[in-house]
Amino acid sequence: MPTLIFVRHGQSEWNLANRFTGWWDVDVTEKGVEEARAAGRLLKDKGVLPTVAFTSMQKRAIKTLHLALEECDRLWIPETKNWQLNERHYGGLTGLNKQETREKHGDEQVQIWRRSFDVPPPEMPEGDQYDPGNDPRYDGIDVPQTESLKLTIERVLPYWEAEILPQLATGETVIISAHGNSLRALVKHLSGISDDDITGLEIPTGQPIVYEFDDAMQPGEMRYLKDA
Amino acid sequence: MPTLIFVRHGQSEWNLANRFTGWWDVDVTEKGVEEARAAGRLLKDKGVLPTVAFTSMQKRAIKTLHLALEECDRLWIPETKNWQLNERHYGGLTGLNKQETREKHGDEQVQIWRRSFDVPPPEMPEGDQYDPGNDPRYDGIDVPQTESLKLTIERVLPYWEAEILPQLATGETVIISAHGNSLRALVKHLSGISDDDITGLEIPTGQPIVYEFDDAMQPGEMRYLKDA
Repeated sequence: MPTLIFVRHGQSEWNLANRFTGWWDVDVTEKGVEEARAAGRLLKDKGVLPTVAFTSMQKRAIKTLHLALEECDRLWIPETKNWQLNERHYGGLTGLNKQETREKHGDEQVQIWRRSFDVPPPEMPEGDQYDPGNDPRYDGIDVPQTESLKLTIERVLPYWEAEILPQLATGETVIISAHGNSLRALVKHLSGISDDDITGLEIPTGQPIVYEFDDAMQPGEMRYLKDA
Repeated sequence: MPTLIFVRHGQSEWNLANRFTGWWDVDVTEKGVEEARAAGRLLKDKGVLPTVAFTSMQKRAIKTLHLALEECDRLWIPETKNWQLNERHYGGLTGLNKQETREKHGDEQVQIWRRSFDVPPPEMPEGDQYDPGNDPRYDGIDVPQTESLKLTIERVLPYWEAEILPQLATGETVIISAHGNSLRALVKHLSGISDDDITGLEIPTGQPIVYEFDDAMQPGEMRYLKDA
C-alpha cells in the first residue's frame, strides 16, 4: 500500500527567536535535533519505514530527514532535494522577529500576512542581508521575492505531481521532510481543506503525519503517528 | 576545472575493534564523527566546495558525507548512493577480529587475503549472522559472497564510468565518500598504480584527496588536502 509520511523540521534557531525565517537557512536547535531523532524512532517502532525520501534545499529540513532516517536505519534510501519544497518565502519580513514586525507594520497588517491565503508580504528589498537570491544553491532558479500561501502551493503542487506522486504510485513508502507551509500545501491538496481553513492549520514540528493511498491512489484520512 | 574529492569514512566501530567489516553496516565512532567534520572544515577553508555527491549504501560513508557537507555548508547538493561504492566484501572473514582470523586460518593465509590483489577470502557461509544478503537495501542486487580487490574494482569502475565521470565532465566538483578498497579502486585507475602496488596503498580516514582534471578529462596528480 503506497504510504506517505510528512515530517516538519524540528525546532529551528529562528523558531526559538520568533523570527520570520522563510528561505533563510537557519539550523535546528538541540531540541530540534531531538525532535527529529524522536520522529525516526517512532517510524521504527511503528514499522512505517520509508523507502524513498524528498526534502527541501534547506538545512533544517535536510538535517531533520537525516536524523530521522538514521534512527530508523534508513540512511541508505534514495533522497532528492528540491527548492519547490522550501518554506514559504516571507519577503521583506525575513529576519524580523514578530515584535519588530508588529512595531513596523502594525498588528492588523501582520495578522493579514500571517493568516491570509493570498496576500503576500512586501517583497525582499534589493541587497537585503537575508536575500537568498545570491546563494549558489539557487543558481538557475527564479527565486521568488515574496510568497503568499497561495503562491507557495503553486510551486509545491507541480513538484508533487511530477516527482513524488509517481514514486508513491509504484508502491513506495515516501517520506517528505519539509516546512510548515510547504506541508500545508500538500495537506490542503490531499485532505481537501478550504483556502480559509488551511491558514489556521498548525503542523507540529517533528511529528510524523501519515497518509495511506488506495489502489486508485486516493488518500485516506490524515493521521498523526503517535506513541500509544 | 572538473575537480574530484575522495573522503574515506571516519573511524568506525569495527576499525577500532580491529574486525573485518566489509558489507556489515557499522557506525562511525565519536572520533570518526570528528574526522568527518574536520574533513568538511578543510574543504571549506581551502575553498574546494563540492557541487555533487556520491556515496555507498553504508552508514559509515553516508554519515561521513553528511557531516563533511554540513561543515562546508553544502548539505543541499544532490547526493546519490550506490552499492557499487561499498567496501570490499570480506566474505567469511566478516565479523572476525584480526587475532581470531589468524588463529582460525594462520598468519600466512591471512596476509594473502589482506594483501593479494586477486585472491578472495572464503565465501560468506549460508545463514551467517553478518550476511547482508537479506538486508532490504540490497533487494534486487546480486550481492557478492566474497570479493578480492580485483573483484571490487570490477564493480566500482563501471559505476565510475557510467555515473560519476559524466558529472565531472560537465565541470562539477564531485565528492565521493566511500571506503578503503572502493577508493583504492579509483586511485589505482586514475593514478595508474600496478596490481602489486595498490594493495599496499593505505588511504587515511577523513583526509580529503583531490584530483583536478584537464580539458581532455585527464586527471592530474593525486594530492592530499591538508592544513598548511
